[in-house]
Amino acid sequence: MSGRYLEDFTPGQVIASDEWYEITPEKIRDFAAEYDPQPIHLEPAEAKASMFGGIIASGWHSLSVTMRLMVRSDIFGGAPVVGVGVDNLRYLQPVRAGDRLTARAEVLGTRPSSRHPERGYLVLRITTTRQDDVPVLTQDWTVLVPTRGAG
Amino acid sequence: MSGRYLEDFTPGQVIASDEWYEITPEKIRDFAAEYDPQPIHLEPAEAKASMFGGIIASGWHSLSVTMRLMVRSDIFGGAPVVGVGVDNLRYLQPVRAGDRLTARAEVLGTRPSSRHPERGYLVLRITTTRQDDVPVLTQDWTVLVPTRGAG
Repeated sequence: MSGRYLEDFTPGQVIASDEWYEITPEKIRDFAAEYDPQPIHLEPAEAKASMFGGIIASGWHSLSVTMRLMVRSDIFGGAPVVGVGVDNLRYLQPVRAGDRLTARAEVLGTRPSSRHPERGYLVLRITTTRQDDVPVLTQDWTVLVPTRGAG
Repeated sequence: MSGRYLEDFTPGQVIASDEWYEITPEKIRDFAAEYDPQPIHLEPAEAKASMFGGIIASGWHSLSVTMRLMVRSDIFGGAPVVGVGVDNLRYLQPVRAGDRLTARAEVLGTRPSSRHPERGYLVLRITTTRQDDVPVLTQDWTVLVPTRGAG
């Protein structure tokens, strides 16, 4: 299920990715080396002595994977996902090599723009889950979506 | 200025990166191809016809760059940055090839953990700015930090 226009979304709708993204040691290392160069992501011995007991993926890595999964779910029917903001983002569980992630969006609400009738705001609760169905991340996206009046 | 322990932080303190990270066409493409495969980040002709008038970096790319800048600012004196959550994240301006980004953290507050006296919560307002000092991203991080009692 996907829609291009604000009017296509109603609260409670769920758009789920049908893909799994596997987190590998190489992906954890490559992402962290560039964007989150901390021992907990890069140094096995230091990571083992930490509260996590071993290497974990950067939270920004899992968030970026979540974006990939939602883009590829075709949630906006090919229209661009224009982010306005993110609220209530919570890291629930660490992500480790061998984990497979998927994601889903639940429509929380829509709001027309008061200044721009050709677009409006869509608020989505995004949940990223692991292969054992345990949520690892939740966040609420506000994105800009065209209205049918614009089409 | 950096601290390892919750007691080292007081509201209003600012920890600024002294680095600039240059966004290149290659970095925009490589990040987007893996994590945000949308035409606005990858296809010049489609991007030119969009509301942005050309290729822009993925928001998750700019966020990941912000993490790099904050980690390298040594904000926690080498202690791990353990994220609990992010609130009030706002995309303020698109980021394009040739832009250089830097970031700073302002301490909004600290809160001891009621259940775990050995740690507490630190809330930071993170601002990412462009070479012309225009903010491109703001967000509030809540991170877990050890207390001196733990040391």
